Amino acid sequence: MKLERALGLLREVPDFPQPGVVFRDLTPVLADPDALRAVVDALQVHVEPSTQVVAAVESRGFLLGAALGYGWRYGVVPLRKPGKLPAVAHRVSYDLEYGAASLELPEGAITPGQKVVVVDDVLATGGTAAAACELVERAGGVVTGVSVVIELPALGGRAHLTGRQVHALLAV
Amino acid sequence: MKLERALGLLREVPDFPQPGVVFRDLTPVLADPDALRAVVDALQVHVEPSTQVVAAVESRGFLLGAALGYGWRYGVVPLRKPGKLPAVAHRVSYDLEYGAASLELPEGAITPGQKVVVVDDVLATGGTAAAACELVERAGGVVTGVSVVIELPALGGRAHLTGRQVHALLAV
Repeated sequence: MKLERALGLLREVPDFPQPGVVFRDLTPVLADPDALRAVVDALQVHVEPSTQVVAAVESRGFLLGAALGYGWRYGVVPLRKPGKLPAVAHRVSYDLEYGAASLELPEGAITPGQKVVVVDDVLATGGTAAAACELVERAGGVVTGVSVVIELPALGGRAHLTGRQVHALLAV
Repeated sequence: MKLERALGLLREVPDFPQPGVVFRDLTPVLADPDALRAVVDALQVHVEPSTQVVAAVESRGFLLGAALGYGWRYGVVPLRKPGKLPAVAHRVSYDLEYGAASLELPEGAITPGQKVVVVDDVLATGGTAAAACELVERAGGVVTGVSVVIELPALGGRAHLTGRQVHALLAV
């Protein structure tokens, strides 16, 4: 399936999770095996060739990141919300579009010098992606890029990711 | 990689998330691309051939289910914790090993008659898996099986899944 058609399956949901926010729902893309493949393979095109590991941001990033890792033979490291990991290497707290949050990196998941791409569904304010990059670097990893399906440029997320390779399949 | 070697990467963490519980940590398996592939492909072997969709249970089920869906061309439907979905078709509440929880099925994600395998990392008391099956069936889907990496037989999870095809790669 062509990427354009796959992305055409995205569903817009107004006023979720807050009034005034238009949520882009990946559900119909995931539910279609050809669309899922088109999107994941399009993400892969922009992954820097030396990359070894996908750092997948909980929870929708898990879906994309694990598919990318399986399909293209990257290791997969889940970056998790607090309280989920039995052994935490590092934690970073940050602000996001609606509220505040923290992400944690599992102990032993990234070794110094490993090349890592950060994967999530959406780049909004960039807080989550910046926290993900910081987690990887605290463990000695090298961030080769940040890949997302959807970027919301109006929220200025790239300002938090200066100097990083940021790739989005769609800007809305 | 042989499945046995991949599963040998599982890490045992005593007293997580509660005293007396031994947590089996998938992190080292996910982080190794060959181990991830071995585990996901071993899950696939037991998926009933008419199956079209993977229902992946939040959150670790997302990692396995999305990899399985990408690799073997199933649609992927995330079964989510409350408050995450913009449009909910059905919700089921249930008890689990430590506490209580609910799962939600996205609107429009499963069409009547679709053949669905439920995927999660662990089968413990069976409450989560039974809730997942019920969600699929409320939408008119047909559950072809429940596939997990690890089963904890001492917790009697299969008693909640009578008459269902349950497959675990490892029983501990």
